[in-house]
Amino acid sequence: MGKFVTFGEIMLRLAPLGYDRFVQSKEFGVVYGGGEANVAVSLANYGKDAYFVTKLPKHEIGQSAVNELRRYGVDTSLITRGGDRVGIYFCEKGASQRPSKVIYDRAHSAIAEAKKEDFNWKEIFEGAEWFHFTGITPALSDNCAEITLEAVKAAKEAGVTVSVDLNFRKKLWSTEKAGRVMGEIVKYCDVVIANEEDAEKVFGIKAEETDITSGHLSDEGYKKVAQELVDRFGLKYVAITLRESFSASDNGWSAMLYDTKEFYKSKRYDIRIVDRVGGGDSFGAGLIHGLSSGMSNQDALEYAVAASCLKHTIEGDFNLVSIEEVETLMKGDASGRVQR
Amino acid sequence: MGKFVTFGEIMLRLAPLGYDRFVQSKEFGVVYGGGEANVAVSLANYGKDAYFVTKLPKHEIGQSAVNELRRYGVDTSLITRGGDRVGIYFCEKGASQRPSKVIYDRAHSAIAEAKKEDFNWKEIFEGAEWFHFTGITPALSDNCAEITLEAVKAAKEAGVTVSVDLNFRKKLWSTEKAGRVMGEIVKYCDVVIANEEDAEKVFGIKAEETDITSGHLSDEGYKKVAQELVDRFGLKYVAITLRESFSASDNGWSAMLYDTKEFYKSKRYDIRIVDRVGGGDSFGAGLIHGLSSGMSNQDALEYAVAASCLKHTIEGDFNLVSIEEVETLMKGDASGRVQR
Amino acid sequence: MGKFVTFGEIMLRLAPLGYDRFVQSKEFGVVYGGGEANVAVSLANYGKDAYFVTKLPKHEIGQSAVNELRRYGVDTSLITRGGDRVGIYFCEKGASQRPSKVIYDRAHSAIAEAKKEDFNWKEIFEGAEWFHFTGITPALSDNCAEITLEAVKAAKEAGVTVSVDLNFRKKLWSTEKAGRVMGEIVKYCDVVIANEEDAEKVFGIKAEETDITSGHLSDEGYKKVAQELVDRFGLKYVAITLRESFSASDNGWSAMLYDTKEFYKSKRYDIRIVDRVGGGDSFGAGLIHGLSSGMSNQDALEYAVAASCLKHTIEGDFNLVSIEEVETLMKGDASGRVQR
Amino acid sequence: MGKFVTFGEIMLRLAPLGYDRFVQSKEFGVVYGGGEANVAVSLANYGKDAYFVTKLPKHEIGQSAVNELRRYGVDTSLITRGGDRVGIYFCEKGASQRPSKVIYDRAHSAIAEAKKEDFNWKEIFEGAEWFHFTGITPALSDNCAEITLEAVKAAKEAGVTVSVDLNFRKKLWSTEKAGRVMGEIVKYCDVVIANEEDAEKVFGIKAEETDITSGHLSDEGYKKVAQELVDRFGLKYVAITLRESFSASDNGWSAMLYDTKEFYKSKRYDIRIVDRVGGGDSFGAGLIHGLSSGMSNQDALEYAVAASCLKHTIEGDFNLVSIEEVETLMKGDASGRVQR
Amino acid sequence: MGKFVTFGEIMLRLAPLGYDRFVQSKEFGVVYGGGEANVAVSLANYGKDAYFVTKLPKHEIGQSAVNELRRYGVDTSLITRGGDRVGIYFCEKGASQRPSKVIYDRAHSAIAEAKKEDFNWKEIFEGAEWFHFTGITPALSDNCAEITLEAVKAAKEAGVTVSVDLNFRKKLWSTEKAGRVMGEIVKYCDVVIANEEDAEKVFGIKAEETDITSGHLSDEGYKKVAQELVDRFGLKYVAITLRESFSASDNGWSAMLYDTKEFYKSKRYDIRIVDRVGGGDSFGAGLIHGLSSGMSNQDALEYAVAASCLKHTIEGDFNLVSIEEVETLMKGDASGRVQR
Amino acid sequence: MGKFVTFGEIMLRLAPLGYDRFVQSKEFGVVYGGGEANVAVSLANYGKDAYFVTKLPKHEIGQSAVNELRRYGVDTSLITRGGDRVGIYFCEKGASQRPSKVIYDRAHSAIAEAKKEDFNWKEIFEGAEWFHFTGITPALSDNCAEITLEAVKAAKEAGVTVSVDLNFRKKLWSTEKAGRVMGEIVKYCDVVIANEEDAEKVFGIKAEETDITSGHLSDEGYKKVAQELVDRFGLKYVAITLRESFSASDNGWSAMLYDTKEFYKSKRYDIRIVDRVGGGDSFGAGLIHGLSSGMSNQDALEYAVAASCLKHTIEGDFNLVSIEEVETLMKGDASGRVQR
Repeated sequence: MGKFVTFGEIMLRLAPLGYDRFVQSKEFGVVYGGGEANVAVSLANYGKDAYFVTKLPKHEIGQSAVNELRRYGVDTSLITRGGDRVGIYFCEKGASQRPSKVIYDRAHSAIAEAKKEDFNWKEIFEGAEWFHFTGITPALSDNCAEITLEAVKAAKEAGVTVSVDLNFRKKLWSTEKAGRVMGEIVKYCDVVIANEEDAEKVFGIKAEETDITSGHLSDEGYKKVAQELVDRFGLKYVAITLRESFSASDNGWSAMLYDTKEFYKSKRYDIRIVDRVGGGDSFGAGLIHGLSSGMSNQDALEYAVAASCLKHTIEGDFNLVSIEEVETLMKGDASGRVQR
Repeated sequence: MGKFVTFGEIMLRLAPLGYDRFVQSKEFGVVYGGGEANVAVSLANYGKDAYFVTKLPKHEIGQSAVNELRRYGVDTSLITRGGDRVGIYFCEKGASQRPSKVIYDRAHSAIAEAKKEDFNWKEIFEGAEWFHFTGITPALSDNCAEITLEAVKAAKEAGVTVSVDLNFRKKLWSTEKAGRVMGEIVKYCDVVIANEEDAEKVFGIKAEETDITSGHLSDEGYKKVAQELVDRFGLKYVAITLRESFSASDNGWSAMLYDTKEFYKSKRYDIRIVDRVGGGDSFGAGLIHGLSSGMSNQDALEYAVAASCLKHTIEGDFNLVSIEEVETLMKGDASGRVQR
Repeated sequence: MGKFVTFGEIMLRLAPLGYDRFVQSKEFGVVYGGGEANVAVSLANYGKDAYFVTKLPKHEIGQSAVNELRRYGVDTSLITRGGDRVGIYFCEKGASQRPSKVIYDRAHSAIAEAKKEDFNWKEIFEGAEWFHFTGITPALSDNCAEITLEAVKAAKEAGVTVSVDLNFRKKLWSTEKAGRVMGEIVKYCDVVIANEEDAEKVFGIKAEETDITSGHLSDEGYKKVAQELVDRFGLKYVAITLRESFSASDNGWSAMLYDTKEFYKSKRYDIRIVDRVGGGDSFGAGLIHGLSSGMSNQDALEYAVAASCLKHTIEGDFNLVSIEEVETLMKGDASGRVQR
Repeated sequence: MGKFVTFGEIMLRLAPLGYDRFVQSKEFGVVYGGGEANVAVSLANYGKDAYFVTKLPKHEIGQSAVNELRRYGVDTSLITRGGDRVGIYFCEKGASQRPSKVIYDRAHSAIAEAKKEDFNWKEIFEGAEWFHFTGITPALSDNCAEITLEAVKAAKEAGVTVSVDLNFRKKLWSTEKAGRVMGEIVKYCDVVIANEEDAEKVFGIKAEETDITSGHLSDEGYKKVAQELVDRFGLKYVAITLRESFSASDNGWSAMLYDTKEFYKSKRYDIRIVDRVGGGDSFGAGLIHGLSSGMSNQDALEYAVAASCLKHTIEGDFNLVSIEEVETLMKGDASGRVQR
Repeated sequence: MGKFVTFGEIMLRLAPLGYDRFVQSKEFGVVYGGGEANVAVSLANYGKDAYFVTKLPKHEIGQSAVNELRRYGVDTSLITRGGDRVGIYFCEKGASQRPSKVIYDRAHSAIAEAKKEDFNWKEIFEGAEWFHFTGITPALSDNCAEITLEAVKAAKEAGVTVSVDLNFRKKLWSTEKAGRVMGEIVKYCDVVIANEEDAEKVFGIKAEETDITSGHLSDEGYKKVAQELVDRFGLKYVAITLRESFSASDNGWSAMLYDTKEFYKSKRYDIRIVDRVGGGDSFGAGLIHGLSSGMSNQDALEYAVAASCLKHTIEGDFNLVSIEEVETLMKGDASGRVQR
Repeated sequence: MGKFVTFGEIMLRLAPLGYDRFVQSKEFGVVYGGGEANVAVSLANYGKDAYFVTKLPKHEIGQSAVNELRRYGVDTSLITRGGDRVGIYFCEKGASQRPSKVIYDRAHSAIAEAKKEDFNWKEIFEGAEWFHFTGITPALSDNCAEITLEAVKAAKEAGVTVSVDLNFRKKLWSTEKAGRVMGEIVKYCDVVIANEEDAEKVFGIKAEETDITSGHLSDEGYKKVAQELVDRFGLKYVAITLRESFSASDNGWSAMLYDTKEFYKSKRYDIRIVDRVGGGDSFGAGLIHGLSSGMSNQDALEYAVAASCLKHTIEGDFNLVSIEEVETLMKGDASGRVQR
């Protein structure tokens, strides 16, 4: 088994306890997370040799981020240390009709201000099997966009499979810039993962007959989206998660996978949400695990959806579940009966 | 814009954490609240010049109540300081079939023992635009009943719009006494707000075809209630909130408004409850905001219902939401999607 | 009124806070509980003269278990002090599709290593009216099996009514051993309580047309189970709880009672779960209360089901509810409206 | 061994966490305590048959007070249930030069409004060996003063030893009233316990050459105080605790005992304070234990001082220590070495 | 009484609970504070008409900072809203030989990036009596340095008394730059406050015979420092706090004041530290209060030292004490006896 | 640099929060620790390639122990997984005259029941530089004693330096058995570390003129102890920590080192204790770091004492300090001044 490398930002997440609002808080829960770090932790949980690549300050907040990754089995030896800040996001949990709220304070983080020479991709990809990142990484700064492009090129050269989660963030860049930068990068990718609105936001590929706010999503519309992504970038797989947002407390959750020949549709789960942050990342990690472990395409998809269904019941960004737990759900036991 | 004055009691609320019962508790969460104080905070949140009038002891518990009001932007300069106690209520959160439980320990509070000379209503209403109180205030003591009557008379004289939330509390007074005292006071009011059972409890005006315990409420029945209130007291507006109590965890929520000519019915929300205390107060505050800000009657009602829907998702008595948040829900986005 | 004696193990329960997983926890909530102790607390809550019999170490952890029982009114004067350990169970709360998880660390506890001479059953049953235990007690060790047999014999001799909750625990013994040991003990019992799978696991009596994981339970199937238990052991009552496990957050809950002549079926509740541990125990206690207080069989059953419905809304093992609360629900008010 | 009866008020204590001030608090720690209840808990800890007599409301806050007493082994079967309020005191912990601060909210409590007929002293003292109360109880209300007088007379008649801790509280009554009421009651007492200023505040008996605020206390002065108390009231024992208040964090602590013939002076401890509330009560309880257990007078005094020294290291009002722990300290091991 | 205006940065302070280190933390305590904000809160506590001037983002973290100021009575109506970040500092509490540790993450805060046109000093100083800031404000950015210079000039012109706490921060600027910028600004000041090393760090004026690390401070040395500051800048008052750092748990604390004619030396306190952050600020606020309230110079100094002594016993940045508490200590009662 | 291998038990530590006693606790703080694990974490902190060898169950409590080690940089790849229990110890923090209290529940842990074949010492010591264990490991069980003997022999054979901390635990074995077993094992050791009473408890070598309970320790006495240990076992180094137990809050702390030629005495620290558990282990780790990093003997000793001085200020078993922090203290800055 080779290295599974992810690259991106890990942030300090500060969250009011329970359902408190920011303005009521006398304490913030402290966890660390970020799209690619979340994927790394999941892969380590599934027994992969997971490496997270980023840049983090030497001080104790930077060290705490490293420690959280180590705690869950991620190899942190490829992390560059330096810079001033760990990016921060404040996260207030919603309920019922009140949405969760995120305030980003991530500008000027060590990774956003990283330079090309901070990473030696050739060395990083030595012995690697898979490389994953999300659309957030190139959005952090122009430097990061360049570094990401360099990374995917190096990965391709090293024969590493490359997956990207489009993960559009409107606070980081415009639709126009995202389309331009990602258009270049995705050319070097094998697998694209997207949520129900990413393809439209990044590449202007809209799913027909779909209204995300009301929770109405059309399978047919998303099939066309997948086909167009394949056509445009020569991909091997496109996976799309389909979140039905009934309220901040209840979501429907399913996904589809296209392998350029066939469309696979997953089971659909009705979820009472504990913490939905990292839901998409946990899907990505599940899919990477499934595709790289010799599962059938349908099974890989079901594994990814079951894994991310479970993520919604877990506090924090990381999806702290085992292969056994995912497989029990994937095989049909959603009864929630006590495991004694 | 003139002053928005509210008058009543602010209590210390002591609540077991999470779903703990009183007898299990080693810590009580501490917040401050009360019908009129809750309205004042909402009005301050909506940018109104909100004043809360009460009497509070000089000691640190009294000061803490003042501080919480100031924190959320309420002007406390009209509060009389003196007396011995801050009224207390103990509040245990229910779940599913187990109801929330409130134990009052509010007798002998500073406001309940306040005297007429503690308040100079002429000065208080200088430059005022709106005066609001609830049926709890006159129920606190005979003194309070007299002071309230004095207040509404002074308000009328000063040309201030007066609203009252009937808010019947059976532990404070009997139906008979409530009817007698409130019957006198409501004559000076322009707007009456009531929940699904107040009109019956205070004035013996019962909504037909309605069973509150089972959650069945009849629109037609409540229309007649509203009409009779208007007829009896010469009001400009009657608003009635319609709570469908399915369980301590799930409620239906809507309201109606009657402007002596037309009946308006709001959207209806299915709510997963975080904390329903203050739900009615948040409706009242929303309605006052709507009616005093030039909204149409339908919009004022929708604003009030959306605001109070959101209150049910917020811990504590105060409805800590912004105009933007209320308007987003009022305009139809109840998807609870993360606001990044 | 005579003594209501229960016999078994009380454990230290260590639980992550909220929905945290074990691996995320920096604190564990501390409560004490166990099948028979839970019944004892309920009986004390209902005004019975409840005694809990066990063996507990003299150190502070043992003392803390004693203290928790005393706190809720259980008489602990019959507890033998000695031995080394208090049994422990770690309990992680599930949500939605993620099941709750229990890790037992109860081997070598003081009660598991207790000897016959630690208990003088003749004295214990002096003035007793009822004796209750569960299938967990004889499963703790061979000694415990012998002691339990001795206890039921002594109870019979003293004219005490004996009830048993089958409570099969696969981590403690095999189906085979359970069947053999319990087969001997149940002969001395008057009342058998079982959940939807106990009769099958202990005595191989399977309910037809039932799939527990999917939540589909057949009334007819369980009637046959009850009949067969009566036939085999000469019982006076068989009660079976019927849990429909939709998810870790939502369950259906009802029960049936057979008095050798008639079958009684209870109301059915849809429950949003706060903590389901002790649900079966609270049913047993409710039934004992009902049957020993002169209620009709239907009422006794409804009392038991309403009591255990409420248990699911309460944190910890103990069902901290009053007779009034149970009766309010039993009589039909499941509205969860605030009790002021 | 006979019953050890104490009579007084148990209050709900609400305290900011750690060193937080009232105005900073979002949570209050919840414990229950009061002079005589604290003594009852200590006596139960020392194996005495301790009964606490008071009046408490039937609601859950009243029940919680009962539960806390039961938890620590106090017999609560003589408590009268009824009335509206549990007395409350708010308690902010001091540090260094900042003193602890107590805000009382105890007026109108169930015990303060109790009536003579709420207590049947003849029955209460059946089989009793010792009766203890403090100067707080008669100070609660005129009724309470009368009830206390009735109690001491009944105790005397029943041949019960009576001890009183003078415990002057200036917020409850004036020096004049205290002197008059206590002057009558103390005539029926055998043992008087006082702190370094009580005798002066209640009976005007001042210790010479002593300045309490600066921490300078004179042994000779207190000897004269003890002698005068004996002369005036015909006592068998007078015990005086001598607190040297260096700061809110550090106190010197010792005591003296006079048995009408000899003066005994205890060891002196330098204490780093965790929680000094209940320090005097723990001394009283230790002394009662010592005097009633056949210790020498010197040993009884040392036991009392060691017990109360330990109290200063324990959170809450109750002195949760065992005989073994007190004796270890009393015999000289103040090293604080880990007990493994 | 005129306005008391302070100008500077208020930061979000994130602190491990208790004595936890950063790397152990799962929660951070949340308070808001900063040199000038701390002074504003103290002045409001002392009944002054306190205004805090800064720039804060519109989002909820910015709003929370505003709310904390309002809560404690500071007028926030002069705060400019805008910009992206609230400055953050992470603060780990030390104990014994382990020092407290602060990690700043304040670059790019709204105030650091504020522009001249964000503040209209003429309006701000209308009706003002006093202006206070610290050496941190001009150190935040070149813009801030310019704005501060503009502010002191406007203050002078408006006849407002100006005080500055030198407050050197080596992470914000070099000794050289500090000297140059502050040299210009201090010319417009009336009162300079400094700690035991500021004068050396900012202006190179070293106290002789002093070793700060070992805790040895020389009065004579500091007198010369004060004289030189007066000579160089034409000041009316120089105050110097003298901290003796024995350990992170224990400090000696005193101060001196020079009014260009006489030197005043304060009492000295031995403090067991709860939280020493804001110690200097609380001294400054006490001094401003003393000097502006007609106290004698000696009294003003004693008030300032007593106030800041108390600050060391209070959690958070703000010195939440009343005039009465400061005066009690200042008049000699440091006994820490419970205030009932 | 080679591997630094430690071998022993890592336990789950459950501790009341703050100064609460066991019987008051509703929550236990959760950390993991144990003599050798503590040393491993320290060594990882100091940049060593630290491996911890033990046996741990596969369940989540076992995994949590692994995770805590990984979090702080310890390599856990040599840990054998299996067995049923993680050993537990309950730890109540003392204060002033009240000692800390430890209740062990470690019997039958996975490591105590481990078998020889669970560890392949030849592989383990491949590339190793140092092996460390404590007297607790062989005390766990006869198996563990054998395994430890096997380990030290294998270490010797592999040319690895072996250090042992005598760490006598009277609850695990008798003085006699300890002497016999350790007498065999220590023959293979190069370095012996002991506290002020270990040598006496294990080998009957008593320090003269020393009374540990009163805190009086004699240097001369300990020199003789060291000499005798060297004589008896042919050691290269003997280090003895000298704790002066004034109270549970205040200790004196120093140590001595003997290199068979010279005696070195360290600086002495007066410590205000936050958490003294792991104090000895942190000394051991500091000494190993010092001796293996080319420090002079005096420096190695000072490093060890400074490191363990700091440990007393840190919550939990692990000494979470950096080389820089230890060196700052070792070089003389014990001022506790804030590090900004």
